[in-house]
Amino acid sequence: MKMSPDRVAQAAQLAMLIELSSSPKPGNVDRGHDFEEIKFHHFLISAVSAYPIFRDAALGSESTGTLIRRAVSAWKSWGLVQNTHFGTVALLVPLALAAGRGGDLRVEVARVLEETTVEDAVEFYAAFAIAGARVADVEDLSLKDPNAADRVRSEGKTLQGLMRLSQGHDLVAKEWSTGFERSFVLARLLVRRVADLGLNDGVVMTYIEALADVPDSLVASKFGSKKAEEASRRAGSILGFEVRDTLRLAEELDREFVEEDINPGSTADLIGAALFIALVEGTILRSEE
Amino acid sequence: MKMSPDRVAQAAQLAMLIELSSSPKPGNVDRGHDFEEIKFHHFLISAVSAYPIFRDAALGSESTGTLIRRAVSAWKSWGLVQNTHFGTVALLVPLALAAGRGGDLRVEVARVLEETTVEDAVEFYAAFAIAGARVADVEDLSLKDPNAADRVRSEGKTLQGLMRLSQGHDLVAKEWSTGFERSFVLARLLVRRVADLGLNDGVVMTYIEALADVPDSLVASKFGSKKAEEASRRAGSILGFEVRDTLRLAEELDREFVEEDINPGSTADLIGAALFIALVEGTILRSEE
Repeated sequence: MKMSPDRVAQAAQLAMLIELSSSPKPGNVDRGHDFEEIKFHHFLISAVSAYPIFRDAALGSESTGTLIRRAVSAWKSWGLVQNTHFGTVALLVPLALAAGRGGDLRVEVARVLEETTVEDAVEFYAAFAIAGARVADVEDLSLKDPNAADRVRSEGKTLQGLMRLSQGHDLVAKEWSTGFERSFVLARLLVRRVADLGLNDGVVMTYIEALADVPDSLVASKFGSKKAEEASRRAGSILGFEVRDTLRLAEELDREFVEEDINPGSTADLIGAALFIALVEGTILRSEE
Repeated sequence: MKMSPDRVAQAAQLAMLIELSSSPKPGNVDRGHDFEEIKFHHFLISAVSAYPIFRDAALGSESTGTLIRRAVSAWKSWGLVQNTHFGTVALLVPLALAAGRGGDLRVEVARVLEETTVEDAVEFYAAFAIAGARVADVEDLSLKDPNAADRVRSEGKTLQGLMRLSQGHDLVAKEWSTGFERSFVLARLLVRRVADLGLNDGVVMTYIEALADVPDSLVASKFGSKKAEEASRRAGSILGFEVRDTLRLAEELDREFVEEDINPGSTADLIGAALFIALVEGTILRSEE
């Protein structure tokens, strides 16, 4: 399924914007609420300004690490200082590279990840520093270590190798380590839910089910794994009812999570990746092309 | 202020998305509500898929009418059948062409409009037919007339000439006829309101003030000019209080307008144009570039 670079960029951007605006998404910015420091329009800026990066990814003209760094720099050029879509972009850039090559998306994305180099790892460190993202520390190569880039070079660690160090405690790194296994599973689930419930409610249900299934690593990095597990149990507790009841309970859970500063942002990143896969495969928003 | 084509496209897309998501905007789709047939994500699709058209506009590689037709066709390619952003695109395409040329935006956009040809008018008719947009009829050259394109050709009417025929009863056509006079006025107002109230509330206040000031032509085309004047009086009646009171009253007015099917979409189009002007001039979301 070879897509034009513009179409790949649009799929990536739509994935970010549909994920953002689907509501109610307990604990994340959505149409229902902002946070004090980070607002809906900040996410609009990061989705809009990433367009040329996704297009260039699909063109295959630059490497994964450089593209991720460029995306984060593009946000700054519109005055954005908050970290918004760092995890999402770390997932969507290799997916956009793969979609631009044509062929089976899953096979291609695995190749893209395997082809990453030490320079990609160095660029990722630079992106991370610019974004000020929060991730779980890696034991051997902490992203907080100011000399980490030098150490990555001297140890010859590729970007996928770096991600493998974090796969036990970061959901985005886990996707990088498994060829996006869970993103593809979630894409299948998403397609079924959207077919049954429409786009907004289908995305919301997939998000709640994903959160119930696997504790969120952003929540764990803030509050520890016990709290992340508790958040997932609470997400699970609103499932198993009629959909409209789950959606009503999701509004309540959203208020509670916001109150407690529980922000399952890594799960939202995965929903963005699943949306991109479904958009590229034409299983949602089927195009006339 | 010569901007890169990508940056012009991003300003246009951000203008569409910020206008869309600013809430509460009485009678229009916003973060607070959808309509039965037309949803938030439909507007996301039209903003996302218009990106390459705005980029090409800034490159100056195609003419105004062709670009407007291409934008409408791009929406269809993502399965969109609803008309969402037709009026906004009819304003943003000439503005993007002007921004791509550099120089004074107001001078350049006047030139772009004057340079339109009979072929632009023919393309605009095609775009109109694809979009299924609602506009007030033009007495001599009705957009509903299936032979209108032939008549435009035989009468040698340019796109600006065509717009002049509708300037008395269509706010978008009025902008085309006056070199975007009101859009620039609204951009100035918007910058002041955003500086005082922040982005969301600044956009909402500008929208309410614009609606109070001039009756909306989409409302007039649906219900007649008396109803459009009444809608503007009602918008004016919630001004003059503390801002937070106006915003609270705007939520009530929104419920009333939605109930009565009053949808001031042309005013929303103008807010989109004003946002673009402010973004290009760097007077909101000031960039670091």
